[in-house]
Amino acid sequence: MQKKVAVIMGSDSDWPTVKPACTQLSQLGIPFEAHIMSAHRTPALAAEFARSARDNGFGVIICAAGMAAHLAGASAANTTLPIIGIPLKGGAMDGLDALLATVQMPSGIPVATVALNGAKNAAVLAAQILAVSDGELAARLDQARADMGVQIAEKEAKLQAELAQ
Amino acid sequence: MQKKVAVIMGSDSDWPTVKPACTQLSQLGIPFEAHIMSAHRTPALAAEFARSARDNGFGVIICAAGMAAHLAGASAANTTLPIIGIPLKGGAMDGLDALLATVQMPSGIPVATVALNGAKNAAVLAAQILAVSDGELAARLDQARADMGVQIAEKEAKLQAELAQ
Amino acid sequence: MQKKVAVIMGSDSDWPTVKPACTQLSQLGIPFEAHIMSAHRTPALAAEFARSARDNGFGVIICAAGMAAHLAGASAANTTLPIIGIPLKGGAMDGLDALLATVQMPSGIPVATVALNGAKNAAVLAAQILAVSDGELAARLDQARADMGVQIAEKEAKLQAELAQ
Amino acid sequence: MQKKVAVIMGSDSDWPTVKPACTQLSQLGIPFEAHIMSAHRTPALAAEFARSARDNGFGVIICAAGMAAHLAGASAANTTLPIIGIPLKGGAMDGLDALLATVQMPSGIPVATVALNGAKNAAVLAAQILAVSDGELAARLDQARADMGVQIAEKEAKLQAELAQ
Amino acid sequence: MQKKVAVIMGSDSDWPTVKPACTQLSQLGIPFEAHIMSAHRTPALAAEFARSARDNGFGVIICAAGMAAHLAGASAANTTLPIIGIPLKGGAMDGLDALLATVQMPSGIPVATVALNGAKNAAVLAAQILAVSDGELAARLDQARADMGVQIAEKEAKLQAELAQ
Amino acid sequence: MQKKVAVIMGSDSDWPTVKPACTQLSQLGIPFEAHIMSAHRTPALAAEFARSARDNGFGVIICAAGMAAHLAGASAANTTLPIIGIPLKGGAMDGLDALLATVQMPSGIPVATVALNGAKNAAVLAAQILAVSDGELAARLDQARADMGVQIAEKEAKLQAELAQ
Amino acid sequence: MQKKVAVIMGSDSDWPTVKPACTQLSQLGIPFEAHIMSAHRTPALAAEFARSARDNGFGVIICAAGMAAHLAGASAANTTLPIIGIPLKGGAMDGLDALLATVQMPSGIPVATVALNGAKNAAVLAAQILAVSDGELAARLDQARADMGVQIAEKEAKLQAELAQ
Amino acid sequence: MQKKVAVIMGSDSDWPTVKPACTQLSQLGIPFEAHIMSAHRTPALAAEFARSARDNGFGVIICAAGMAAHLAGASAANTTLPIIGIPLKGGAMDGLDALLATVQMPSGIPVATVALNGAKNAAVLAAQILAVSDGELAARLDQARADMGVQIAEKEAKLQAELAQ
Repeated sequence: MQKKVAVIMGSDSDWPTVKPACTQLSQLGIPFEAHIMSAHRTPALAAEFARSARDNGFGVIICAAGMAAHLAGASAANTTLPIIGIPLKGGAMDGLDALLATVQMPSGIPVATVALNGAKNAAVLAAQILAVSDGELAARLDQARADMGVQIAEKEAKLQAELAQ
Repeated sequence: MQKKVAVIMGSDSDWPTVKPACTQLSQLGIPFEAHIMSAHRTPALAAEFARSARDNGFGVIICAAGMAAHLAGASAANTTLPIIGIPLKGGAMDGLDALLATVQMPSGIPVATVALNGAKNAAVLAAQILAVSDGELAARLDQARADMGVQIAEKEAKLQAELAQ
Repeated sequence: MQKKVAVIMGSDSDWPTVKPACTQLSQLGIPFEAHIMSAHRTPALAAEFARSARDNGFGVIICAAGMAAHLAGASAANTTLPIIGIPLKGGAMDGLDALLATVQMPSGIPVATVALNGAKNAAVLAAQILAVSDGELAARLDQARADMGVQIAEKEAKLQAELAQ
Repeated sequence: MQKKVAVIMGSDSDWPTVKPACTQLSQLGIPFEAHIMSAHRTPALAAEFARSARDNGFGVIICAAGMAAHLAGASAANTTLPIIGIPLKGGAMDGLDALLATVQMPSGIPVATVALNGAKNAAVLAAQILAVSDGELAARLDQARADMGVQIAEKEAKLQAELAQ
Repeated sequence: MQKKVAVIMGSDSDWPTVKPACTQLSQLGIPFEAHIMSAHRTPALAAEFARSARDNGFGVIICAAGMAAHLAGASAANTTLPIIGIPLKGGAMDGLDALLATVQMPSGIPVATVALNGAKNAAVLAAQILAVSDGELAARLDQARADMGVQIAEKEAKLQAELAQ
Repeated sequence: MQKKVAVIMGSDSDWPTVKPACTQLSQLGIPFEAHIMSAHRTPALAAEFARSARDNGFGVIICAAGMAAHLAGASAANTTLPIIGIPLKGGAMDGLDALLATVQMPSGIPVATVALNGAKNAAVLAAQILAVSDGELAARLDQARADMGVQIAEKEAKLQAELAQ
Repeated sequence: MQKKVAVIMGSDSDWPTVKPACTQLSQLGIPFEAHIMSAHRTPALAAEFARSARDNGFGVIICAAGMAAHLAGASAANTTLPIIGIPLKGGAMDGLDALLATVQMPSGIPVATVALNGAKNAAVLAAQILAVSDGELAARLDQARADMGVQIAEKEAKLQAELAQ
Repeated sequence: MQKKVAVIMGSDSDWPTVKPACTQLSQLGIPFEAHIMSAHRTPALAAEFARSARDNGFGVIICAAGMAAHLAGASAANTTLPIIGIPLKGGAMDGLDALLATVQMPSGIPVATVALNGAKNAAVLAAQILAVSDGELAARLDQARADMGVQIAEKEAKLQAELAQ
């Protein structure tokens, strides 16, 4: 049975930034759930979600949070599933607070951190993780990568047209 | 009955840096407990400690952690007691990771953050908090402050002696 | 007699950012005063305010300042009441100047620092401090915390409704 | 057949920092290869390694690099396998150069970044990724996590003994 | 035969920032090509371009990229032509990610880095490089420098007129 | 009558870093006093010193402090004499805390900030300030500047000798 | 004869930020000149201006520049008059480039650095420097300082009126 | 006639860090001169050197400086030869001061900046610049690049031997 991806965020105000992760998962045909829960405001809920995630059919948990971004780390503390952290901009120093609070995890409890506001990349990484044991999904990822090359070729063609004028 | 102060840290390797907090509390005659527990390695234990701290006679919890320092925030998420966070140096950018991960808490869940490696000041702040309703402790703090002035006067005298040579 | 909270700021231009602290104190039923005074432009006034604050019935002083933010430190230098510092954005590096100038206090003179522009959290922290010896206020804080969980549950329900469409 | 993990680094001088990743993989019984290849000095070799990694039985590639750390990104550009990046300290600003060069990847090409010098965590993350489809490995990871709790309990006991003296 | 300058960028969205480089090259009468190719999305294309650049008549390659800016480094890895890197703003910390990822190259593989968004200066530097063996171009650069002095004199005159009112 | 320079520092531990300021003042024949007083531990003393400094014959006050370096700002708040601030390394981010806390003063209350640990330069700047109305001192400063050129010429000669071997 | 203040800037685009320095000097009755000259585009002009400034009746030179802000340092290299540097925002990291390039001067060649965009404070500092030997100007500065206190008292009154509603 | 490379530094204390540039130039058979001169202590000398460099047979000038590193910029202001800047560590924030002061040059006056303490790379870049019009030198650079691959292959072999034990 195909593993699901969980996409959790600390606040509904994060949803516009996080939504591209869900869009990307949909495009790759990967089942997912999105939830709002907070490491600080609903800590018991967040801990329980992580603790039961593997049993509930999840393969990866994506956590998006800003400022003293603890959601990914708090989830990682309660499961051995791979946790992907999306640090969100908006706190101090252009998001450096969220980036460091997400990536600088102590020994034994990693968080797979992607770029600031990198919701789409979090979904791609989740897909890459699931594709390790799913050749069909791997093929879809390879196809998406090839499509990128095509898009760049089209943009290059446009630029040459502009320069030739 | 006098409230206790809890001093918790994520690792025994933090003890040398954290110990001055306990020394300071002792000097001020404030009862305390020190414990090792981790927001990431023993999350259930840390959460339970914070949840039951008020009932267990604690008035303030001091939390020391480095890197993606979540211990103070995780404690704050589980109690409405005042939480004092000591960000520890040693991760990235001279401790900036721990400082931002400690201080940049979301709305509604504050952590009273002191300077990097500021264990003594965490204890002084805990004492100041308890002294709000304890005039005798307030008097001891005022005395300690006055003593600082005396110490500086002694150092000033030494400097003048050196300059006069 | 219930202790008051002082909310002081260096300039009237800080008032819109600082006002949420007063709103939060009002909602929690905590008496407060708000004042404009500057560590640099009216240093004698600010020093005198801090020196007499305990005698004038204050339990906590909240200080908001930006750039080379000295107001909290200058207050802390003149009283042993707990001082809460709100570093304000607007100077250099997205407020890093105010954060470091507020939190990096020398040994013996702590400032309880909250997040950049964290006026609401400063008020919550002040309430937590007063609640150490005020069980009724502690109960109100616990209730406010529980309400946060309810609000998140409502937002989660909305998100699920959106996803189910 | 069990997937292997590749551990690649840009220079033999990185080996002492990277070696704990291999030690951790060994302890978890995960087959691995370690190689020296450089995104800048042997770009064709590094690209070819990544391009053929899935066919060669690898499930995850761990890349360690410092300064303008391109090795993880260059590998990610040439495969859709999950790439784990270990930013190494030693360049500018306590490793901030390597951290940002590793984590701030463009849309579509993620690198799963761990803490600065976080070799052990890179291995744990690789194991977590492989364990998504390997229940036996997941059980070993859960056991290792439980062992951490035991170790902390032992340290706590030592601290209490010290405090009781 | 006069050497050409290549101006390459990772995305068409970089074109407005990069275009001043082309304008400057045109004004100095230096032949150039501009292309879109990505170190991460079209790595083989980017590598091949750099490898064959000297044989194709290029004397300098200008590379513009943001975030984990690898385009300049990836080009430098595949040629011994001088590579000029333009770090682009827009990622983290006001472009510090791109600056460090461009300039902090390992020993043996330099990138000549100019200021953030410094497209015009990249072109001037390319011209200076070509002018080392082209006295006529050197004379044009000297003339352009002298023109700057004239422009400043005009602005100074305007300011004096304004002050004299 | 010649104006004196005051050199004040927050702690006797700063003396080794600050002493070169006194040495430089001596070499230039400028009378000075050095004192230990703290903006945080002896605020009334520091304020009084600044308030009476002009009447006491001082022309410039040099203040050295680290971390949340308030000594220069607190002095500037209590006099309109020029205040020179020496930010000291040792707190966070290689002294960035002290630098920002010293230089980022609010409108109307400047501090003339020199480089981190720049004690000698603080003394040179104080001398330059006094020399505005003291032609003889200005001549001594010009001579010292000329001597620097001679020293560099000697070092250049040594280097050429080494290279010629 | 009263010394003049020079206010120089690298570009006419800096004028709106620099103008408050001139306004402040006018208000204090201090004669000044403002000029556009660049350390990089008109280096000989800038050097000559500094070299002859003392003979031309200047007592202080204020230099405003952004990015790799060399104007203050280049002026300081060519005179022993006190040089005040205003680092301008607009380059990298919210002006950190200009701040560090202005303040981190080598031993022997100080620049008196004020806050980012601190044009008014540069003028106040220049006035303070001239007032060291000009009691009448010192009195005007003291009066301006007292006026600040009055302004804050008015703002405080307004705030109390608002709170009393 | 073959163009020379100038290697200039602000202080003899920089020589150990700068020397690898000279060693590299020697190995590549490129004539060079090394000199000590300072943008701040001997500004006229430094300006004159740059102004006459092209006529004196130099093709490239390498400038090494720390802190408010103006030497490269001051040289660039006085010639249209390509200037390579080596920012030196040792000032603030692990050399960030020197990096920003070197790279953030204004429009029209570029400095080709290499990594912090990147003396060897400065020499390689100088060689790449001279090789644009010198096929024989280009061939030597290609050979040196190929040698790097061989060295890495040797290190890889050693690592495999160690792992095989």
